[in-house]
Amino acid sequence: MLYNRSVSKKNDVTKMANAIGIFDSGLGGLTVVKQIISILPHENIIYLGDTARVPYGPRSPEIIKRFSEENTKFLIGKNVKCIIIACNTSSAVAAGHLKRKFHNIPIFEVIKPAITEAKKSVGSKIGVIGTRATIASGAYKVNFSVACPLLVPFIEEGDVKGKALQIILKDYLKPLKGKIDTLILGCTHYPIIEHLIQKEIGKKVKLINPEKMVAFEVQGFLQKNNILNSQKEKGKKQFFVTDLTERFTKVAEMFLGQKISGVIQKVNL
Amino acid sequence: MLYNRSVSKKNDVTKMANAIGIFDSGLGGLTVVKQIISILPHENIIYLGDTARVPYGPRSPEIIKRFSEENTKFLIGKNVKCIIIACNTSSAVAAGHLKRKFHNIPIFEVIKPAITEAKKSVGSKIGVIGTRATIASGAYKVNFSVACPLLVPFIEEGDVKGKALQIILKDYLKPLKGKIDTLILGCTHYPIIEHLIQKEIGKKVKLINPEKMVAFEVQGFLQKNNILNSQKEKGKKQFFVTDLTERFTKVAEMFLGQKISGVIQKVNL
Repeated sequence: MLYNRSVSKKNDVTKMANAIGIFDSGLGGLTVVKQIISILPHENIIYLGDTARVPYGPRSPEIIKRFSEENTKFLIGKNVKCIIIACNTSSAVAAGHLKRKFHNIPIFEVIKPAITEAKKSVGSKIGVIGTRATIASGAYKVNFSVACPLLVPFIEEGDVKGKALQIILKDYLKPLKGKIDTLILGCTHYPIIEHLIQKEIGKKVKLINPEKMVAFEVQGFLQKNNILNSQKEKGKKQFFVTDLTERFTKVAEMFLGQKISGVIQKVNL
Repeated sequence: MLYNRSVSKKNDVTKMANAIGIFDSGLGGLTVVKQIISILPHENIIYLGDTARVPYGPRSPEIIKRFSEENTKFLIGKNVKCIIIACNTSSAVAAGHLKRKFHNIPIFEVIKPAITEAKKSVGSKIGVIGTRATIASGAYKVNFSVACPLLVPFIEEGDVKGKALQIILKDYLKPLKGKIDTLILGCTHYPIIEHLIQKEIGKKVKLINPEKMVAFEVQGFLQKNNILNSQKEKGKKQFFVTDLTERFTKVAEMFLGQKISGVIQKVNL
C-alpha cells in the first residue's frame, strides 16, 4: 500500500504532503475541489486541469484513456495519497483502465457513488445526462440517458441565463420528462445550472450531484484508513493546468464558487 | 527551394507526389479542401485534422503555436509541396511563427487573402467574426470584430437550424448591424451557416469566405511556379486525424460537402 508515501523534503512537495490529487479534462472538476474543501477543509489538494485538450466529452475512448493516463502519471509524480477522477467522461471511459494500470494508488471516480446514491431514491426510475462519451460508454447503467453536448460550451462561456440555453435544455430533457424520479447530473459542469435543470425536469425529480457523493466516499476512505491530514490550518492548494488563458480566473472561480488561492502553474504533460 | 521535392518511391508517398498539405484544428478545414477540389481537381491533397485537441479557438497563443508547429512538422514529413493553414485561429496566432520556423516550404494562411478581397468592396466598412483567439489576436486588422465562441459547438453538433442558434447569432451580430458593408467569416465553420448569417446581418452586406480566397491564392502560386500537378485523373486524398470518433464521417462530410473518399488514418503527433 502506498497510502503513506515518503516525501522528498527538498522542495515544495514537503509543504503539500499527503495531498489529495484531483484531475479533470479542464476546470469543471473544481466543483469536486469545492466539495472536498467543504467537508475536508484541512486536506491539501493538488488539482490538474488538462485545459490544453479540454473537452474530453466529444472524443474517442482510446484518446480519453491516453489523456487520463497522462494526468494520472502527473499526479502520482506529485506524491498524492489518492486520486479523484473528477471528470465524468474520464470516469466513464477510463476509470477501469487506470485502476488496473495504477493499482498501487487508490483511485476514485464520480460514477459509482452517484449510482449508489441514486438507488436510494424511492421508485428509482433513474436518468442521467452527460457528454457524448459518458452516455455512449453506458457506464451509468440506467435506463434513461441523454447526451447533452452543448451544455458544456454554454456553461464554459458563462452563458447560463439566456433564452438559447433554456431552449437547448428543454430539447435535451424532453425524452426524460415524466419518466424519471431521479436525475444524475453526469458532468462536472451541470451543477452550475442545477436550478434551470430542476425547473425544466420538474420539482419532484431528485437531482444527484456526483461531485458531492465522491467527496463523501473519499472522506470515508481517509477516515477508515486513518490518513486524514492532521494539520489544523486550512489545507493548501496547488493548481496545475496544461494551458493558461486570460479567462482562467473567471471560469475557475465560477466552478470553485470562491476566489482561487494557492499556486497556479502551467505544465506540459 | 523545396517546391519540387524528391519523393521516396518505396511507399505510399509516391502515389501522393506533389500533394498540397492542409491542416486544421479539426474538421472545419475540410471547407478549404472543398474549395481546392473545386478549382484544382487534379491536385493531390494530404489533410491533417488535430481532432484530439480541437477546438483551438478558446486556447492561449502559446499552445496554439505549439500545436500548429506539430501539425506543420507532420505535413513536411509527408513531403508536401506547400502547406495551407486552414484554421483561422492558427492563421491568426501562429502563421508568422510557422513561416519563420519553416522557411523552406511555402506556407499559406487564410487571413491575408480574405482581407485583400474584403478591401475590394465599395465603402470598405469591414467586420469580422471568429473564435476568441482569432479576434483577440487582432490579425484581421479591421475596425469591427466580434468573437462568436458558441457558433463552432453548434455547427459541430449539426444543430444549424434551431431557434437557439438564431438567438445566439442575433446577439453576436448585434454590435455589427448597420455599421459594416463587408463581413469576413473568420472561421472555417461559418460557411455552413452562411445563409443564416446573411439573413441576420442583412442582404446588403457582402460576406467574404476566406477558404475560397486562399484556394485562389494557392492556385496562382502553383501556376506561377509551374508546379501544378500534371496528372489527368482526379487528385488523390489522404486524411489524417489525431482522434477518430464514430461521428467522423457525418461531421467530415458536412464540411466537405461531398462523400469522403480516400485514405483515413489516425495518427499520434
